[in-house]
Amino acid sequence: MPRYKAIVEYDGTNFEGWQSQPNGNTIQQFIEDSFIKISLKKIKIFGSGRTDSGVHALGQVFHFDYDEELDCEKIKVSCNHFLRDHLISILFLEKTDSDFDARRDATMRTYLYKIVNRKSPLALSKNKAWHLITELDLESMKQAAKTFLGQHDFSTFRSSSCEAKSPVRDIKVSNLSQVNEEIIYEIQSRSFLQHQVRSIVGAIKLVGEGKWALTDIKSALDSKDRKKCAPPAPSCGLYLKEVKY
Amino acid sequence: MPRYKAIVEYDGTNFEGWQSQPNGNTIQQFIEDSFIKISLKKIKIFGSGRTDSGVHALGQVFHFDYDEELDCEKIKVSCNHFLRDHLISILFLEKTDSDFDARRDATMRTYLYKIVNRKSPLALSKNKAWHLITELDLESMKQAAKTFLGQHDFSTFRSSSCEAKSPVRDIKVSNLSQVNEEIIYEIQSRSFLQHQVRSIVGAIKLVGEGKWALTDIKSALDSKDRKKCAPPAPSCGLYLKEVKY
Repeated sequence: MPRYKAIVEYDGTNFEGWQSQPNGNTIQQFIEDSFIKISLKKIKIFGSGRTDSGVHALGQVFHFDYDEELDCEKIKVSCNHFLRDHLISILFLEKTDSDFDARRDATMRTYLYKIVNRKSPLALSKNKAWHLITELDLESMKQAAKTFLGQHDFSTFRSSSCEAKSPVRDIKVSNLSQVNEEIIYEIQSRSFLQHQVRSIVGAIKLVGEGKWALTDIKSALDSKDRKKCAPPAPSCGLYLKEVKY
Repeated sequence: MPRYKAIVEYDGTNFEGWQSQPNGNTIQQFIEDSFIKISLKKIKIFGSGRTDSGVHALGQVFHFDYDEELDCEKIKVSCNHFLRDHLISILFLEKTDSDFDARRDATMRTYLYKIVNRKSPLALSKNKAWHLITELDLESMKQAAKTFLGQHDFSTFRSSSCEAKSPVRDIKVSNLSQVNEEIIYEIQSRSFLQHQVRSIVGAIKLVGEGKWALTDIKSALDSKDRKKCAPPAPSCGLYLKEVKY
């Protein structure tokens, strides 16, 4: 059966996350429904991974099977007609290898986390960044980001409901940069644990506030104990930027 | 009477522009109302200039008089409490010289215009950029931007309802840059005519599409005839970035 690969952007603010739920208010559900609306058969799509409620994507990837040859350009435009008001946009759609798997075959995932550090509330980036009022020490945050580089047991930095077999992940990029009041954190790994990026950002923030020293991050990692984790950063600042294969 | 200066950020999407209107749905009105809500006397605020419906601001400036000494930090925080859900945020508030005038004293205004050039609809930047589907020639757009530099009669590039006495403006910066699918145009001048930036961006876009040559911009300027103007770019891509004094 022909298999198709798609890349999709979405504003996660008004969704219960990627994965289908009984109430149906998920990105996956709206995309699947758009196929019905353009009179195609019912499909099930498979994402590169779930994103939580409120998390955004610049380039989420999914695959699906369809028992006919599709005119990809036409399908993309037609589905987007029904998706655009929901702030979901299919950027790319093509036929792919019949054994391509959006989750399993990913070789690198990149997430961004956006912080706005200022006293006044957010207007233009409301629900699109973590608003932090306390003045942050960027240099120590940069060092904190570096401590996550390489292979670590991230038991402390994953959700207690995370189902991954191994808590070990190898972080290839962990970079912090600042332009004016905006702080961007970028992290890359082949795969991530549930709530891992938000947990890491929560720890980096504590370092920026002077509440944690760099050694506290090391202790937290070494403890392999979820209870030693910093409070995770909120989902609104998180963006799934890119998935590579 | 003490005079105060403020800097304000707003998402213009859901407003009828800056300036007070009979229906009240303007940024000016919401800010003035926030003073009443925190039990201060009725005030009238004076902006550095009007912004149209849908235009955003990173740093609009306004002044107002109040017949008492105000605790600026406290007032800012209290007003923002009532403004934040409307996506208006006062960034800065301080007492200023009693003859400071937000409009008349401005020595430089900077606007940004944001274009996203891709086929798929906008999700994360919906209402925050001009979505252009046709592939644009960035190099000729950069040259087009340069032709507006310096002193020109902008009769062609202003609204027929513009009330400014002189159509002559001196453009100090007119720069186009691109990062991936996002094109940012930045323009600086002491002051601007009504719809001037959007009219200029409309012309640059026609050059990018190959529908206008660079000479067409010169002809349009020379004609001093509004009817020779390109269709103005939509308001959603325009940001008042900064006003200097």
